[in-house]
Amino acid sequence: MSETDVAIEMEAEFAAKAKYRDPPPALLLDTSELKKWCLYRALIAEFMATLIFLYVSIATVIGYKNQSMAEACTGVGFLGVAWSFGATIFILVYCTSGISGGHINPAVTFGLFVGRKLSLVRTLLYIVAQCLGAICGVGIVKGIMKHPYNSLGGGANEVSTGYTIGGALAAEIVGTFILVYTVFSATDPKRTACDCPFVPVLLPLPIGFAVFVVHLATIPITGTGINPARSLGAAVLYNQHAAWKDHWIFWVGPLIGATVAALYHKLVLRG
Amino acid sequence: MSETDVAIEMEAEFAAKAKYRDPPPALLLDTSELKKWCLYRALIAEFMATLIFLYVSIATVIGYKNQSMAEACTGVGFLGVAWSFGATIFILVYCTSGISGGHINPAVTFGLFVGRKLSLVRTLLYIVAQCLGAICGVGIVKGIMKHPYNSLGGGANEVSTGYTIGGALAAEIVGTFILVYTVFSATDPKRTACDCPFVPVLLPLPIGFAVFVVHLATIPITGTGINPARSLGAAVLYNQHAAWKDHWIFWVGPLIGATVAALYHKLVLRG
Amino acid sequence: MSETDVAIEMEAEFAAKAKYRDPPPALLLDTSELKKWCLYRALIAEFMATLIFLYVSIATVIGYKNQSMAEACTGVGFLGVAWSFGATIFILVYCTSGISGGHINPAVTFGLFVGRKLSLVRTLLYIVAQCLGAICGVGIVKGIMKHPYNSLGGGANEVSTGYTIGGALAAEIVGTFILVYTVFSATDPKRTACDCPFVPVLLPLPIGFAVFVVHLATIPITGTGINPARSLGAAVLYNQHAAWKDHWIFWVGPLIGATVAALYHKLVLRG
Amino acid sequence: MSETDVAIEMEAEFAAKAKYRDPPPALLLDTSELKKWCLYRALIAEFMATLIFLYVSIATVIGYKNQSMAEACTGVGFLGVAWSFGATIFILVYCTSGISGGHINPAVTFGLFVGRKLSLVRTLLYIVAQCLGAICGVGIVKGIMKHPYNSLGGGANEVSTGYTIGGALAAEIVGTFILVYTVFSATDPKRTACDCPFVPVLLPLPIGFAVFVVHLATIPITGTGINPARSLGAAVLYNQHAAWKDHWIFWVGPLIGATVAALYHKLVLRG
Repeated sequence: MSETDVAIEMEAEFAAKAKYRDPPPALLLDTSELKKWCLYRALIAEFMATLIFLYVSIATVIGYKNQSMAEACTGVGFLGVAWSFGATIFILVYCTSGISGGHINPAVTFGLFVGRKLSLVRTLLYIVAQCLGAICGVGIVKGIMKHPYNSLGGGANEVSTGYTIGGALAAEIVGTFILVYTVFSATDPKRTACDCPFVPVLLPLPIGFAVFVVHLATIPITGTGINPARSLGAAVLYNQHAAWKDHWIFWVGPLIGATVAALYHKLVLRG
Repeated sequence: MSETDVAIEMEAEFAAKAKYRDPPPALLLDTSELKKWCLYRALIAEFMATLIFLYVSIATVIGYKNQSMAEACTGVGFLGVAWSFGATIFILVYCTSGISGGHINPAVTFGLFVGRKLSLVRTLLYIVAQCLGAICGVGIVKGIMKHPYNSLGGGANEVSTGYTIGGALAAEIVGTFILVYTVFSATDPKRTACDCPFVPVLLPLPIGFAVFVVHLATIPITGTGINPARSLGAAVLYNQHAAWKDHWIFWVGPLIGATVAALYHKLVLRG
Repeated sequence: MSETDVAIEMEAEFAAKAKYRDPPPALLLDTSELKKWCLYRALIAEFMATLIFLYVSIATVIGYKNQSMAEACTGVGFLGVAWSFGATIFILVYCTSGISGGHINPAVTFGLFVGRKLSLVRTLLYIVAQCLGAICGVGIVKGIMKHPYNSLGGGANEVSTGYTIGGALAAEIVGTFILVYTVFSATDPKRTACDCPFVPVLLPLPIGFAVFVVHLATIPITGTGINPARSLGAAVLYNQHAAWKDHWIFWVGPLIGATVAALYHKLVLRG
Repeated sequence: MSETDVAIEMEAEFAAKAKYRDPPPALLLDTSELKKWCLYRALIAEFMATLIFLYVSIATVIGYKNQSMAEACTGVGFLGVAWSFGATIFILVYCTSGISGGHINPAVTFGLFVGRKLSLVRTLLYIVAQCLGAICGVGIVKGIMKHPYNSLGGGANEVSTGYTIGGALAAEIVGTFILVYTVFSATDPKRTACDCPFVPVLLPLPIGFAVFVVHLATIPITGTGINPARSLGAAVLYNQHAAWKDHWIFWVGPLIGATVAALYHKLVLRG
């Protein structure tokens, strides 16, 4: 009997003990949700979390660029920018996962919808709340950092010089796949069964790190979207042709990546 | 039944099992505390933790600035400064949370007071202990790094060139909101119920990361206060007009941000 | 009775309670595995994880080098490269440890084989899946970053100027020893017994950090292999003499390091 | 009843449930230990861990300095050096805490001796094993990186230009105090009682972060000792007057800091 067999046997024992259960697939149209306060609380939480996420990350981007022009090498660099996105997602997933699930990203919400974890109603409302939150978050940054915001690119996602549209789209697909794959792994009911110390504790940490490493890899290519609300918020406030021209990439790429991750988890890992 | 409903049901089951309870609101005037050794132990712990916090973080700031003048690129940069503040808070919250609650910040103490988690007596004594600790911590840095300390800004918080008073105040409000919101999320009795592995383990980690990311976003604007004891300690030892001129921002901003976070948690998230 | 004795006594009590058991040594030839879907699922998981690992890490290397030529100091630097390798391993071990064990590295697989944790069949299939995944992952990077990929070294491992073959081999042996020693410590059945919160939670974190620190130490020497699939994938796509000339080092070194770690764990730590 | 009172009451309940117990003070002379294999296993583990610690950290220091001369800004910088020391301690404490307690530092061992957690025999043998391990670890670095090792300072601790002997001694005392205070907090029997998920999981993480932040603060002053074995190992292999001249600081400072931390924990926090 190999180690893996033992692991599988232990998993069975554990499942029996912890009585985890896969929740039934979410209804597509579940209008009863609309009458519950907890839905609106979740929408407020998603709005606030996406606002905070964009405020912190875009302020880091603009503040760093402003500074690095004056004093080379003192700024936080792209490494600091990647930490800002990743570590902020870590704390926000930690703070909101008990209230709204802690998506903070329309691609994550859409991926969970494809995996039948959310109703269509909740999916659409979450995405609206996230987009509004992102716009407000970038708005605060623009309010505080008026001049540098406009002159330094506004934190908007664009296809960098030297990369093709196809390459940028591929990078967004793969990057979002990595993020949503991590989200599915972290929220697998096998793991979140409350008796087991394995996962709930770590749930927000790998998700934050996934955002971090995808930024390390993708900042040179597109600035890193993998979150349509983040891309939309910056595009609305920056509002230049360069930001809108390729904006579709930052919706199509993440939604494809999230769909593939949902199917990979459902058909292969849990198949 | 959606995933969220299952989560809520599991939460109810868990609450029944773990028997967590919201402690009653703290009395405003609880003079009986004054007779207990554990209050004085908590004050010593807050004093020591704030001393260590300021020693590590301000030594990092001054040491880095001194070095970066001699050899560009070798210093830790603003990213290292942000890590210094965030990671030190992580270890200090870890070490003192069992003794004093691990506030190490008058804004956190004030926010918990607004949320009725602390008596007025304890609140005031904590803030005094934190301010004294901060002054002593910066004092040790000044003692060790005499010359560079004075010439390199003393680690004091100021409104950076190019930013308005209003912008700086807004940045301090939002930054402290993020920190105190994370503290309330991490110390929610739902989470700290001892049977559940969810939160106690992670409690200090998101708080440290919140400090870290707020520094990434706010160092270019104000150097980042979000902690009146930190701002006061550096201002007292540096003692230049530039540090005192806008000093009120680093009390008013954090106290507003903490109040809003306490109300957001009470009225919306737990409403 | 010293603290250590108490610890040992507590360990015995705990072992009795948690009923952990060392699984029996894996069979060398266990062809029954070949009929199980869970083996193929594990192979797919190893393939995908190694693909993601190489995609993220090599994209970070190439993107950073491309950028740092244009704007000194803005790129993520070798520190960012080390984070990319380490943090990606952290999330991938987290996501795949329940499915395939989360090796993502032929040296780890080989070390566990030496420690009799895996059958020969599974060992060989894992290594093939990892190598194919690595080649595909670097292939995606080359597809997206065509021009810079070729001109910037392709992320391939080579012996850096100023170092000897023997020194490079020694660095690969020691670096892989550190990684596999950490893997054995983290997956020790004493630790993974499910009742104990000690290890499962942390299992992926020290493994990721081990990869991180070995990169900090070894990037200047060989670029850091410690993973034959990683070295092979980059060599195949880069396909220059410089990458193939010393390629044997990146198989021999890691396999020796993994073997020594397996023996150290078996003979000394569990002896 | 304030929140703190509730916490104290919960602690009492928990103590009753988890039956943690303070182990009796260790005997000063406990020669019976000398007959147990587990002592020798612990000594091997301390030797190996200190060897790995010095290998990784000093290779990072030398490799970085070598590189930064050729290509400014690409090296890991002092931030990378601080991560190397801190993150390596994290993984080594994780791997060895179950075997030897995971000290890897004579100051930690001495502090635990002052706190009566270890016998004198074990204390002395640990310190010898740590010093030998450190010398071997630096020896491997010198073997691999021959030329740069000698010309780039050998990773030895010295008092930096512009700092006084007294300032350097103070920095070593405070830095070691922070580390040993964290160790005492993390290994407090209240926390390590096995039923409680609070601490064992996090035990190595704050200790690693303590080493990290003390390096951020102290690298500009002394290069950061806070570990006599680390200072001795580098001094022996570098063997220049500059390294030996102030070498006493890196024994006296850490031993004073560790003693103060042990007394602070015993008399104040547990008083």
